[in-house]
Amino acid sequence: MLCICQLKRLVFITLMTVVVVSYGDLSVAYQPDAAFEIEQERNSEIWSQQEIIISSKLNKLLRKYGKRPNIIYILADDIGWGELGSYGGGKVRGTPTPNLDVLASQGMKFNSHYAEPTCTPTRVALMTGRIPARTGLDGVLFPGQTKGLVAEEYTLAELLSDSGYHTAMFGKWHLGEKDEHQPTNQGFDYAFYTLYNGGVWPWAENSEYYDFENTTIGEIPYQLDMPKNYKEEFGIDILGILESRKRDLPKEIAPLSLERYNKHDDELADKVISYVEQNAKSEKPFFVYYASNANQVFACPPEYRGAEHVDEGNCQASQLAQHDVNVSRIIAKLDELNIAENTLVVWMSDNGPMYRFFPSSGYSWLRGHKGQAYEGGVRTPAIAYWPGVIETGQDPMDLIHVTDWYTTAARIAGGFDKIPSDRVTDGIDQTSFLINGEGYSHRNYIYHYANGTDSRDTSKTMHLAAVRYRDVKRHIKSRETYNIIRDPGEKFPSQPKYLWFNVVSKQMIARHKNMMQRYPNRVLWDEYDAKISE
Amino acid sequence: MLCICQLKRLVFITLMTVVVVSYGDLSVAYQPDAAFEIEQERNSEIWSQQEIIISSKLNKLLRKYGKRPNIIYILADDIGWGELGSYGGGKVRGTPTPNLDVLASQGMKFNSHYAEPTCTPTRVALMTGRIPARTGLDGVLFPGQTKGLVAEEYTLAELLSDSGYHTAMFGKWHLGEKDEHQPTNQGFDYAFYTLYNGGVWPWAENSEYYDFENTTIGEIPYQLDMPKNYKEEFGIDILGILESRKRDLPKEIAPLSLERYNKHDDELADKVISYVEQNAKSEKPFFVYYASNANQVFACPPEYRGAEHVDEGNCQASQLAQHDVNVSRIIAKLDELNIAENTLVVWMSDNGPMYRFFPSSGYSWLRGHKGQAYEGGVRTPAIAYWPGVIETGQDPMDLIHVTDWYTTAARIAGGFDKIPSDRVTDGIDQTSFLINGEGYSHRNYIYHYANGTDSRDTSKTMHLAAVRYRDVKRHIKSRETYNIIRDPGEKFPSQPKYLWFNVVSKQMIARHKNMMQRYPNRVLWDEYDAKISE
Repeated sequence: MLCICQLKRLVFITLMTVVVVSYGDLSVAYQPDAAFEIEQERNSEIWSQQEIIISSKLNKLLRKYGKRPNIIYILADDIGWGELGSYGGGKVRGTPTPNLDVLASQGMKFNSHYAEPTCTPTRVALMTGRIPARTGLDGVLFPGQTKGLVAEEYTLAELLSDSGYHTAMFGKWHLGEKDEHQPTNQGFDYAFYTLYNGGVWPWAENSEYYDFENTTIGEIPYQLDMPKNYKEEFGIDILGILESRKRDLPKEIAPLSLERYNKHDDELADKVISYVEQNAKSEKPFFVYYASNANQVFACPPEYRGAEHVDEGNCQASQLAQHDVNVSRIIAKLDELNIAENTLVVWMSDNGPMYRFFPSSGYSWLRGHKGQAYEGGVRTPAIAYWPGVIETGQDPMDLIHVTDWYTTAARIAGGFDKIPSDRVTDGIDQTSFLINGEGYSHRNYIYHYANGTDSRDTSKTMHLAAVRYRDVKRHIKSRETYNIIRDPGEKFPSQPKYLWFNVVSKQMIARHKNMMQRYPNRVLWDEYDAKISE
Repeated sequence: MLCICQLKRLVFITLMTVVVVSYGDLSVAYQPDAAFEIEQERNSEIWSQQEIIISSKLNKLLRKYGKRPNIIYILADDIGWGELGSYGGGKVRGTPTPNLDVLASQGMKFNSHYAEPTCTPTRVALMTGRIPARTGLDGVLFPGQTKGLVAEEYTLAELLSDSGYHTAMFGKWHLGEKDEHQPTNQGFDYAFYTLYNGGVWPWAENSEYYDFENTTIGEIPYQLDMPKNYKEEFGIDILGILESRKRDLPKEIAPLSLERYNKHDDELADKVISYVEQNAKSEKPFFVYYASNANQVFACPPEYRGAEHVDEGNCQASQLAQHDVNVSRIIAKLDELNIAENTLVVWMSDNGPMYRFFPSSGYSWLRGHKGQAYEGGVRTPAIAYWPGVIETGQDPMDLIHVTDWYTTAARIAGGFDKIPSDRVTDGIDQTSFLINGEGYSHRNYIYHYANGTDSRDTSKTMHLAAVRYRDVKRHIKSRETYNIIRDPGEKFPSQPKYLWFNVVSKQMIARHKNMMQRYPNRVLWDEYDAKISE
């Protein structure tokens, strides 16, 4: 016989189950990687209980605001693990980030957030929820390359558009030059953007070597074999600032001169703020993707250079200080518009530091750098802020990967069932982690791809370089195995304890490759590379 | 003509000057190193203005409590830079320190605190205010060695005794075995202590290799050529727990078995708390030196092992968790007794991690380890807590060195004029830094001694290995030069900018050596070493 309280609980669960279904049956379309299928099966009971809390919270918000939550993803460039004050950096490293530190303390500061090791791969991972190997965009795109984000990928912007969102993109796109690749052909209603870090790169016609004190940048032999007539050839100033609207061709706004680049992050934040203002009261929620150019080389915003505790000899520090203020301006706007509670803001860096341009470069406490599968290459600072939904003051150790932001956004937007079923989506829905807190990540593994991870692993093309399972990580070619909690700096490889991991990692790799056979990777053809190799 | 406000100011300054003099004329006895003499001259005007604020604050306290401030120095063992949560470690590294993190946030967290690179040298530096080269104790003492802290050194305990303080020592002494070397023959009224890390070292008769999962300790070929009859030979259980009172010979309490060692930090904290309770209402202030044994190898307090976020496979993590609680118990007692405002508490680590015993070892985000002049060896976490006097929430970048705690205590205790004038005292009075805050450190240089700093510098005896001036540091033998703000991990040596530092560091070294000629270093004779080399 059921007692009353049991009955009450049954009714509650039944009601909640209806609510869950209203969010879409989570098990239909979505095809994760094999490692996650195992986890799903193992945790099905616990996770369905978590769903009750999640759905209850999200439905409460839906009733209050009458629309799904807004989503703002801010992707910073080349900021290493530990540079923010809240990660033990800040003034210690000459890179104070007071506003991001406040944001971290008011939300969730991720201690184990992982990205892909370079720009384009992280960007495509965020846009598709798929590791770059699957999309064919497994390396950094340089001007002249014809590869890019193809129409067949179903981007986060497309998914959110189809789920009833306004969508806009601001900043560094870095996912191809062709019409097909442009953000407004990939689901964004509006974009104000650059294809690369524009005019600031040495190969650009209008590049200026910023003559800041003591830089070694002028000495770097970094010159792509770039056609001088690219504007005619590509029909667009691929190094300038562009603007476009859905399905329009991009319009050239201006070249990204050094002078403009010094203010470009301010300009981007201004555009984000206007967009938020315009859409705050719309009946549709909005998705903003703000890919800051800050922290890439060659700019040095004068008003931040040498500000209190900002290392004057490191222009990257001035850019970070500028970006830090810009993030706070966006947050302040959400408060002002009373929409902070219905807006998920995620700030993250795309990969580890690019030491090639030291002293004006990012920095990491960890071993390795951009391009590598060592922690310094792939572990990045990241913060989620959603007052009233994400509890303040959290700093979880749970694993989370950049692809998860795709799947999580899909879930929050009520568009989970739109995730294509004909391909693997690596992103995992982390709504439970955000809402229920530390210990509730649904991820316990990562496949780290890289271009060369160490002296024994010099492959120039992107390849599976390391496997992470819970606290343990194995670099495949060098066979180094580390406990990443005990030894975050990857100083002491292959402690005897981890012999068992040889077996586990082999199984994981086999399953991963097997899945790739069932769902083959996209292979992209690059005309420019082909021309050069002729 | 003087206006009234100017007159008022004049009267105020005159009054304050009288107060300053009442604290002793700071320029008479004290003989600093040459580098500081230059700074003193350069800053004489500013610093004498700072004196006004310092004296005003200290006098206010003196009037309120009727006695000088109590002083508690807590010295932890082998905890690396970055292990505490407040330094970007904590749960990230499996070593949570919630209580020390609170302490850091309520006081001053030093980002640039430097110690000597090993145990004995840091301890003698703290006790004498002199870099170890001057005292002859420039290396780690091992059982059987006959060197130690000689009677001719004027210890902080002697200075504070002579200034009217109760003085007591708890924990790991590590400054010699002979009667002359014992803490109660060096100014302490009372001591409850061990000479080494006692019974836990492999050479001890009663040592037990703690068989915790996956340790590699058993494999370490670490065995000193130690006389088995040391008890007869030295007349004392040099590996056990000792107790003594002023000028008495030490009494043996118990061997430091592993079981007892697991609780030894609790026992030490209990003793500290009793001592504080007994002396809180005395008309004399007290000085407590609590040198925790925590974080040295071989103990693994079971009640902390594998506690939340505490890495179970790292016994050092359990000891740190235990010590973290013990520090909080002492702080709570100060509050309870209403003496926190009149008590300066300083917590610091003695040197960087000893990776030899990894995985049960300290850890540092920085390059290098115990014994080295790289940041990982000498940059240590440190916190000063003095509610109402030290402003909360500070995390200064100013340089401070372990010897400064000697001179600062002398100043606070009103015993500055007792500092001997016949020798160099390297410690700098940092009262202005504590009271006036960031930017007020009086130190802008450090001479880093080490045993071997890198592959090119393999010297086994302690020697001047690196010189620091403001943000720049030069390793002498390898000629590596780093900007420690820009590159705290010492990854990018000898940027072209720092060619000028070759000249500056040479001048600094010449002045330093010149001063050593005027005031020669003490040379200690070790009978045991001599016997072995016969």
